[in-house]
Amino acid sequence: MAAKKQNAFYAQSGGVTSVINASACGVIETARQHKKVIGKVYAGRNGIIGALTEDLIDTSKESKKDIAALKHTPSGAFGSCRYKLKSIEENRAEYERLIEVFKAHDIGYFFYNGGGDSMDTAHKVSQLSETMGYPMTCIGIPKTVDNDLPITDNCPGFGSVAKYVAVSIREAGFDVASMAKTSTKVFVMEVMGRHAGWIAAAGGLAAEKEGDSPHIILFPEIAFNKEKFLKKVNRCVKKFGYCAIVVSEGAKYKDGTFLADAGTVDAFGHKQLGGVAPVVAQMVKAELGFKYHWAVSDYLQRAARHIASATDVEQAYAMGQAAVEFAVAGKNSVMPTIVRKNTKSYKWSIGEAPLSAVANVEKMMPRKYISADGMHITDACRDYMLPLIKGESYPPYKNGLPQYVTLKNEPVKKKLRKKFEI
Amino acid sequence: MAAKKQNAFYAQSGGVTSVINASACGVIETARQHKKVIGKVYAGRNGIIGALTEDLIDTSKESKKDIAALKHTPSGAFGSCRYKLKSIEENRAEYERLIEVFKAHDIGYFFYNGGGDSMDTAHKVSQLSETMGYPMTCIGIPKTVDNDLPITDNCPGFGSVAKYVAVSIREAGFDVASMAKTSTKVFVMEVMGRHAGWIAAAGGLAAEKEGDSPHIILFPEIAFNKEKFLKKVNRCVKKFGYCAIVVSEGAKYKDGTFLADAGTVDAFGHKQLGGVAPVVAQMVKAELGFKYHWAVSDYLQRAARHIASATDVEQAYAMGQAAVEFAVAGKNSVMPTIVRKNTKSYKWSIGEAPLSAVANVEKMMPRKYISADGMHITDACRDYMLPLIKGESYPPYKNGLPQYVTLKNEPVKKKLRKKFEI
Repeated sequence: MAAKKQNAFYAQSGGVTSVINASACGVIETARQHKKVIGKVYAGRNGIIGALTEDLIDTSKESKKDIAALKHTPSGAFGSCRYKLKSIEENRAEYERLIEVFKAHDIGYFFYNGGGDSMDTAHKVSQLSETMGYPMTCIGIPKTVDNDLPITDNCPGFGSVAKYVAVSIREAGFDVASMAKTSTKVFVMEVMGRHAGWIAAAGGLAAEKEGDSPHIILFPEIAFNKEKFLKKVNRCVKKFGYCAIVVSEGAKYKDGTFLADAGTVDAFGHKQLGGVAPVVAQMVKAELGFKYHWAVSDYLQRAARHIASATDVEQAYAMGQAAVEFAVAGKNSVMPTIVRKNTKSYKWSIGEAPLSAVANVEKMMPRKYISADGMHITDACRDYMLPLIKGESYPPYKNGLPQYVTLKNEPVKKKLRKKFEI
Repeated sequence: MAAKKQNAFYAQSGGVTSVINASACGVIETARQHKKVIGKVYAGRNGIIGALTEDLIDTSKESKKDIAALKHTPSGAFGSCRYKLKSIEENRAEYERLIEVFKAHDIGYFFYNGGGDSMDTAHKVSQLSETMGYPMTCIGIPKTVDNDLPITDNCPGFGSVAKYVAVSIREAGFDVASMAKTSTKVFVMEVMGRHAGWIAAAGGLAAEKEGDSPHIILFPEIAFNKEKFLKKVNRCVKKFGYCAIVVSEGAKYKDGTFLADAGTVDAFGHKQLGGVAPVVAQMVKAELGFKYHWAVSDYLQRAARHIASATDVEQAYAMGQAAVEFAVAGKNSVMPTIVRKNTKSYKWSIGEAPLSAVANVEKMMPRKYISADGMHITDACRDYMLPLIKGESYPPYKNGLPQYVTLKNEPVKKKLRKKFEI
């Protein structure tokens, strides 16, 4: 099977990261080294939607230089999408359409770059192609800032967002410390992570000794205790002169209500979406009277290629590369993983996991990574996370601005007459 | 006068920046080269408050290495403050106290690092010290992310926040572009600048050709026109698939009402402070129905030493250096300025301005820097601003984190018996 030359399909799925294009780079550069086995790499325009609508991008039209530049370009160069295929029972037509499009373009390799949902899709495509008499090689490529895929030690995308958050809260901490005497005493920075506190925990890396920013982290895993929280804020301000707080967008009360939903309404009386930082900041102001500032990084944090982790970039590339090498070696229905070696200094290698074991499993943050009081991280967390933010991988600059590539993204000529409505 | 050896006082004032410590570094390193004229450099703990309360820091206790590290450390290393001295008529006691403290510690040089208010203070101190029979050399050192000091071509601090904003909106633009097909179509990033749109304008640098992010900039200088704005948002989404917006915190309606004040109330019915980004985002959602995301960088933008402009760092240092050299040369009641040379490639030199001409004058952004439709920047603005963000000046990293210095900040022994209440 490895000898049969066919084209490959590659798609980016779900929320993008600052390094998912590094995985794309790994896929395309490696495929170009295996021309006897892999013909062209077609990318789905806007992810899997590109496959369903036969909107394919011919990556062979892109120069070597532009493909190399993907390694330092954030976002999804071919477009991503939030579109989850339904189960085969619910919508078999979608899967059949995929196979039909792949058949029409002689696509024998399916590389799907995404999170848990995407691994589930890749797994289903692999099963269905078999039963439909058009066997395909399906390889998942891990990607998620949320760091919530199982088996793999960590997920490409996470290390860079973690580095951004740690660097930012360190810098903001220095700022607030210098203003605290007469002005801002409390700073609140909101970060992503609706279900798990991985990203919020990363902020904790900035605090290397007592008194360092951040002083408090609010996790989705720990029910918010207003009294305990305010007490700690007050203690911090008294002791260190200021208090820097990282709050996960998913922070919630014991009853499951998100803090972000806990009150703010817009001019029309509608509940305001998002923004847990202002809610927390105003709570501090109302109860303790401290002057506050707050920040919401939102997309900035996951797009911040300018401060990406070199380890993360390297791993993202390696996952794309390994995916192609797995396919060429005849492996199927697997996802390359990052395996941490049991050494003193951080070392890792590439492993593999069956898609069936990865699909739809969410890896939560272990309780042992959160301090006893529920408002900071432990040394175990620090040991796990620090290597992931290590190294700087700066993009090239021109005129003071990072030079990110926009590909030509030339379409492949359609072969099917039937259109597909999504 | 230049021959008389006396100590120097240095203080940081107002909102800090990612490069104000580079100016401090310039002051201290240069003063150490002029030991025949300048004895010790005493820094005010928390700015001018340190002088009023006789809370001085002996910078001679800091190692050469730590002082050098100030060049890459954001925030105010000695503490800053938001404390404006009243006019001499209103509170002569404050000025007299300053002179008293300076006299007690044989301080003959007063270096005040701040914006327009601070230049006013420095000017008054210089006048009063003369009439009180204790003549002092008073030199202002320009600093403000707002870029609103007159005479000087630009202000140290601005170039780095400008670079942060341009880099961030470019990165977020790439992110939104890849998500827009099925998810977020409009992204709003709020930046500082309550009175002038300099910082918002900097976002425009990221847009090098049609369709680039940001597509829209909302300035405080241009009365917000909801209809025109929504039309442009809609046109952008139709044409480019998405719309990236930079909004100044000071954006306002024709009647002067801030957009940020235009509605949002918290759970208790109180008006919510800050946050123009969510207001704009929700307006888009309500009127056009597009899915949105928003970010508020707040302190992150002015503390972001990790992405500081090399030009800005160099100029900040040079201003501190020049201030001391001016003092040593016997100049008084002046502020060093940045003078742009009339050359094709960007060149600058150091000039000087009398404090009396700088004090309390706010430089607004010229209308010719704003496009005809009032929602973007012109080439004239680009020509002015691009050189200011040029060059990267990365701090050193260890374990993936920038290594910023925290000084020992040892106090100078008090000599006065009288305490001063601020």
